[in-house]
Parts: sequence; structure tokens; C-alpha cells
Amino acid sequence: MAENRMMSLAALIKARDAGKADPGLMVALSRDAIARKDPDIKAFAHVADEPVIRTEGPLAGVAIGIKDIFDTFDQPTSYGSPAYAAHRPRTDAAIVDLARRRGSTIIGKTVTTEFAFLNPAQTVNPHNHAHTPGGSSSGSAAAVAAGMIPAATGTQTGGSVIRPASYCGIAGYKPSFRLLPVTGIKHFAPTLDTVGLFAAGVADVALLAALLTGRNLGTGPGDEAAEPAKIRVGLYRCALLEGADPDMQAALNRAADKASDAGFDVGEIGEPESMAMARDAHADIQNFEAGLVCGSDLALFGDQMSEILKATIERGQAITPDAYDAARKLAKRGRAATRALFNEVDILLTPSAPGSAPLGLESTGDPRFNKLWTLMGTPAVNIPGFRNASGLPLGIQAVARFGQDKALLSVAAALEQAFRD
Amino acid sequence: MAENRMMSLAALIKARDAGKADPGLMVALSRDAIARKDPDIKAFAHVADEPVIRTEGPLAGVAIGIKDIFDTFDQPTSYGSPAYAAHRPRTDAAIVDLARRRGSTIIGKTVTTEFAFLNPAQTVNPHNHAHTPGGSSSGSAAAVAAGMIPAATGTQTGGSVIRPASYCGIAGYKPSFRLLPVTGIKHFAPTLDTVGLFAAGVADVALLAALLTGRNLGTGPGDEAAEPAKIRVGLYRCALLEGADPDMQAALNRAADKASDAGFDVGEIGEPESMAMARDAHADIQNFEAGLVCGSDLALFGDQMSEILKATIERGQAITPDAYDAARKLAKRGRAATRALFNEVDILLTPSAPGSAPLGLESTGDPRFNKLWTLMGTPAVNIPGFRNASGLPLGIQAVARFGQDKALLSVAAALEQAFRD
Repeated sequence: MAENRMMSLAALIKARDAGKADPGLMVALSRDAIARKDPDIKAFAHVADEPVIRTEGPLAGVAIGIKDIFDTFDQPTSYGSPAYAAHRPRTDAAIVDLARRRGSTIIGKTVTTEFAFLNPAQTVNPHNHAHTPGGSSSGSAAAVAAGMIPAATGTQTGGSVIRPASYCGIAGYKPSFRLLPVTGIKHFAPTLDTVGLFAAGVADVALLAALLTGRNLGTGPGDEAAEPAKIRVGLYRCALLEGADPDMQAALNRAADKASDAGFDVGEIGEPESMAMARDAHADIQNFEAGLVCGSDLALFGDQMSEILKATIERGQAITPDAYDAARKLAKRGRAATRALFNEVDILLTPSAPGSAPLGLESTGDPRFNKLWTLMGTPAVNIPGFRNASGLPLGIQAVARFGQDKALLSVAAALEQAFRD
Repeated sequence: MAENRMMSLAALIKARDAGKADPGLMVALSRDAIARKDPDIKAFAHVADEPVIRTEGPLAGVAIGIKDIFDTFDQPTSYGSPAYAAHRPRTDAAIVDLARRRGSTIIGKTVTTEFAFLNPAQTVNPHNHAHTPGGSSSGSAAAVAAGMIPAATGTQTGGSVIRPASYCGIAGYKPSFRLLPVTGIKHFAPTLDTVGLFAAGVADVALLAALLTGRNLGTGPGDEAAEPAKIRVGLYRCALLEGADPDMQAALNRAADKASDAGFDVGEIGEPESMAMARDAHADIQNFEAGLVCGSDLALFGDQMSEILKATIERGQAITPDAYDAARKLAKRGRAATRALFNEVDILLTPSAPGSAPLGLESTGDPRFNKLWTLMGTPAVNIPGFRNASGLPLGIQAVARFGQDKALLSVAAALEQAFRD
């Protein structure tokens, strides 16, 4: 699919810094690609009429797509909901403002599912238009995968960054909880809502994160993957794995073989019971919080909500504080077990999703392989590269200890290379 | 000052439940009091024209004042800033929606300092109009203290709940971090911003919190203060104490004596070095985060900002991620020391402020006794009762272990009674 040839952020910035592409040209490339491709892909909720092109800053010329769950002062912000069809916030979300300050161009708002929950939107998967791109960051993942933009933002409360990245065959990065500022998104469950990023490959998404935050995130010297024999990579043998599609199970085994061939210290590691219990606690935590933070929307705009959203908020409001506290206690125990697990291993590998992108647009797929890591707050990245017999991408999720984002991205970039070899 | 006779939430609810006051009358009492008193006190940024009176719900008839840092869909929300003079959010903040669902009446928006930071507003202290009511929750504290309303919301990032409660002689409660939902406030520093409550006395604020959240918070059976000899109360001998005003030092010593007379196990406890260091880390954490989450405001509305706000956001944007991470590490160490400290003691007593409300409206006072506990996330309550020779209130701050809100409020209510005896 040459039509889907992706824009590498690292390559674009290299060209810019070598004087081979100026910011105006870089943004024009994206505008042209959007004009040609988006009528089919439907990744954008809004495209900026006259996007501001900056010539200063590390992200100058980088056209970034903003999931339409983030506030933008100069573009409509609808949160995927008809109740916000004409909404125009007063200010940018913090990450949008940061992206502007770093020089990037806010090229448009990408399609989100309603309130970043499960009700699907119109975007299609660039690899096969009959399949979902995943959700809730549907438009961001599809726009990067279709080669329209080199960078996009997302959010993950269950599996809304890693899953669409997997389905669309791109890198998706869910940082450690709070590494990227969440202020100015439409919240669904504040202790889970995490800002993430999309780009073509792992090195691209690491560079994007590094240039946004000013942090060293695996793109400079001190690369943790330089001595792979010292990196313990663990295949995470959770019970869920049995329910994954055979092609995903095969991809995971190939990933382990490739990692081993590349010199990493690869083993298997089981799931502690307390981590499985924490995964099961995710729903009560999410829904209780949604009952609180979407309560005003339910009261004012309930008649404009999908049934699944409305029912989830109502169910959340019926959860008792005791039940919520019990779920939080399970999460706390799970976090302690997770810390202990990362004494045994540096990087975990698990599927990013149960399989490739499901057929049809009625569902955005299943976040079951993602929600534990969202609740644990650990950094995770989707490593693209594998495909099934139908040519649909199969993503491998790498996870590291809380705060070890640099090591995660370094190793994941090396693994991505190894998967290709 | 009979004019300042406060409205006790507990007494109002008791009267309502006994059929002696209906919700309409209760709200009318507040509307009348606001009409008479607020021209002098200037506690309200906006008073609802036709407030909705509900007859169902545990807070039916309770007129609650909402700090104008919380979004309200039906009343202007200005965040104390001219940049938001005509702002009307689409939805309520989560705590406002919750208050409505529990039956209360949103009687108006109370004055906040600009973005809940330090630039003072117009509200005066009901005990002496030449003195500040404190900030940033200036209007909420003054409105309760002046007897206009039985309940109000606030937020604390440094000392914005406990300090104005102390200056105004009312109960102010800063719950454990995240106990009350923060979604829908104008954020300043998201890892610090904490929703708090005001009411006349400790039992009132505990009842308010319990009825809002549906939690048992020291207002029902199982009262931790039933056996005071089993409660270890520690006078917190931090180095700051030497800098407190003599009248505040005397009040703290009287508080300890009264607690001892009431049968509590009273001792002294020193401040671990790591907690003092955590206090000093508060500024970098707050300002770095303000640089992120107020960055869009600075870019769009910087010319409408006070100098102190503008300079703080700019200073925050100049803090490096490394410096922020170092400050967060100090906070983490401080939290570990705090947990260890609460193995030795159940309740800490410290001043709520360095002294009584300062003369003049040019400053809202000093949060130095509050910011450590905001950063630690521990619950704190201002216990009113003491006054200095000028008749100005001197508040005592009680602090407990994270999550021990019920024990804190039970003991603080018993101490409040003991201080009066």
C-alpha cells in the first residue's frame, strides 16, 4: 500500500535541519495529503483553515493532529459528541499549548469516539477500509497510518492509544501517568486518563515526546539498548493470552524469537494474581469516576448521548464509595506487585490487542490487554511491524516500570528494528 | 459581633428534618443575609437570580456558595480574572453537579483571587473589614463567617482553604488528595489542586462532606474520638513555629492544654528533615505545573494578568524537567517520612497560619503552614475557636494520615468542643 506511506517525524526533522525542507513545505505536505486521503479515511473532525506555521522551535514545521478530546482555542472542539457540536474553548489544552510553544503546527482535530469512550465514530482503518482503526483515538492513529501527518496526540483511559496504534500499524506511546499534562482534555476517569502520542515508528514517537517535554527519552546518548544482553525481556504469560487470536499469539512468539536473536535476555514471566485482580478492578474505578466527572453532561445533555455512554455514567453513579475504595485498594496491591515484577524483568512484552483490527465499524475493538497498564500507570508503547495473512497489522506492546520511559523507548526502538530484520 | 452569627449546617438540617424549616425558607434565609451583608463583605462574584430549590436529597435547602474557580453552567465563571469576565462554561464542575444531585441550591459564585493564586481580590474579613479574609478562597470563607451561607466550596494548592478558614474563624476542610473530584476547576498545579469545603464548625463541615460523598466521615457511629486516651495528638514542632506570631504560639499551646484536659494523649513531635525539604520543594512543583497548565492563558491573555501571576507562570516555564523531577523526588521522600510519622501519632496540631488575618487587603497572607500538607496529600482541617486580643480568629490546623479523614474530623470536632470549654 504505497498510498499509506507514512511520514517519519525523525526523517522530516532531519531534512529540515539539513536545510532540505522548510517548515512551510513540511506543513504543505500534510495539507496536501489530508486533502487527498481524508475523504476516504475520515480521520479529521476539523482541518485548520489557515494553520500557523512557526519557524522557531524544535518542532517547527511538524504538523500535529490533535485528538478532538483536547481543547483548542482556535478550532472547534466537540469531544465526539453532538452536545458539543459548536463548542469553542477559551484556551488550549496544556499539551496543545506546549506543542505550539515548541514550534509545531496544529493542523487539525482528529476524530475521537464520543467522550473518548466506546461508541464508534466514522474513521476507517487505512490498511482496509472495512475494518475499524480502533478507538478512542481513532482519527489520530488513522491519520498517521495513512501518511497524512507525522505526529498526533491521543488519550488512553482503557486502551485508547495502544489499541488503535496496533490496529493501524504505527507507534503509539502511553507515557508514565502524568508525564504529559492532561489539563484541558474532556475527562472521563481522572485517575486513568493519560495523554499519549502517535508517530510512524518508535524512534519517531520517542523523538516527539523528547522534543515536546525537553526530556531525554531514549533519543540521545546513554541508550539503554546498547547492551541488549543486559536487558531482561519478559514474555508476559497472563491468562488473557489464551484468548488472543492465533495470529497474535504467533506474532508474540516471533517477537520473542527476534528479541532473542537480537541479543536480549528473553524469558517468560507469569502474571501475579494481584495484577489480574487489579485488571478486574479497572471497570469500577473508571465507571465511578465517569459518574462523577460526566454527571453534569448526563444531567444537561443525556438526551444527546449514545446509550452505551449514558448507561455507563448511570452505572458509575450507582457504585458506592465503599466499592470504589475496594477497587482502588486492589489497584494499589496490583501496583506493589507490578513494582516487584519489574525487579525480575526490565521490559514486558504482551499483545497490544487480542488480534488485528476487527471487521466492521460497529466496534472499536477490545482494550483487555491495555487497561491493566493504564491503571498501573506504567509506560507502554505499541511496536508495529508484524502483520497477519490478510496484511493487517499486529502490534506488540512493551511495558516498563513506572518512570522508566527512556529505557522503554530505547529498547522498543531496538526491538522494532529487530522485528523488521 | 451578633451580625456575624453563623449558619450551622447541622442545625439547619436538623430543623429541616424536624419539619421546622422547609428548603424554600432555608434558601430564603441565605438570600436575605446576602442582600443585607454582601454589600459590605463583597464575598460574592455573582448571586443566582432565581436559584433552583430542590425538595429531595440530603442537602435539600442547603444554600452553597461555589468558589468562582469552579465551572457552573448557569452562572458566570470568571476565575477571578478579567480575561474570563464573560465566561459561561458548558457544564458544571463535578463537585457542583454532585452538590445539585444531593439537593443543594447553588446560591452564587464566591470571590476567588485571580486563578486562585496570590493577587488579592475585594472581599473583606467579616471580623474586621480592614483585614484580609485570606485567599484564595476569600469569598467562600467570608460568606460563611459573615453568616450568609451555611456551606461553601474552596480549593487549595498552597494554603487556600485552611488559611482563609483560620482568618475568618470557621471550619475549613482540605480532604485527602482526590477525595473530592477536582474536574471542572481552573487548574493551577494539578498534582496539588485540592477541593475543600467550608462551614461554620467542624461538625458542620464533616456533615457537608459526608452528605456530598455518601461516605461515613465522622458524623455517624464509630466515632474515633469516643476514647480520647487512645488518640495520640502531637504538637508539630517544625522550625517554622518560631516564626509564628506570639498570639498564635500561645493559641497552639492552649490548644494542647485543652486537648490534654479533654483526655487526649498529647505530646510533641519534631519535624523530620525530609519533610522540611519537601515543603521547600512545593514552589518548584507548583510553578512548573502552572507553567504547563496556564501556558495557553499566558499566551492568549497575558496582558490581562497581574504581574505576580504572569511572572509565576513564566518562572514555571523556565524550570527544567530535571529540577521538577528533583522536587518531585523530595516530595516522595517527604511522603514516606509522613507515613512513618503517623505511626507515632494519630493527629498533628500546627498553626493554620502564622497569625491572625493581616491588616490591609494588599496581601491574602502567608501559606507557609499549609503547603507541606497540600503536597503530602494528607487531610487537614482548620479548627476555629481561639481569638487574639483584637478579637481576630486564630485557627489550629489538625492533620492526619492520608485517607484518615474520618478519624481527623471526629477528633477535630471533639477538639473544637474542648477549645470552647
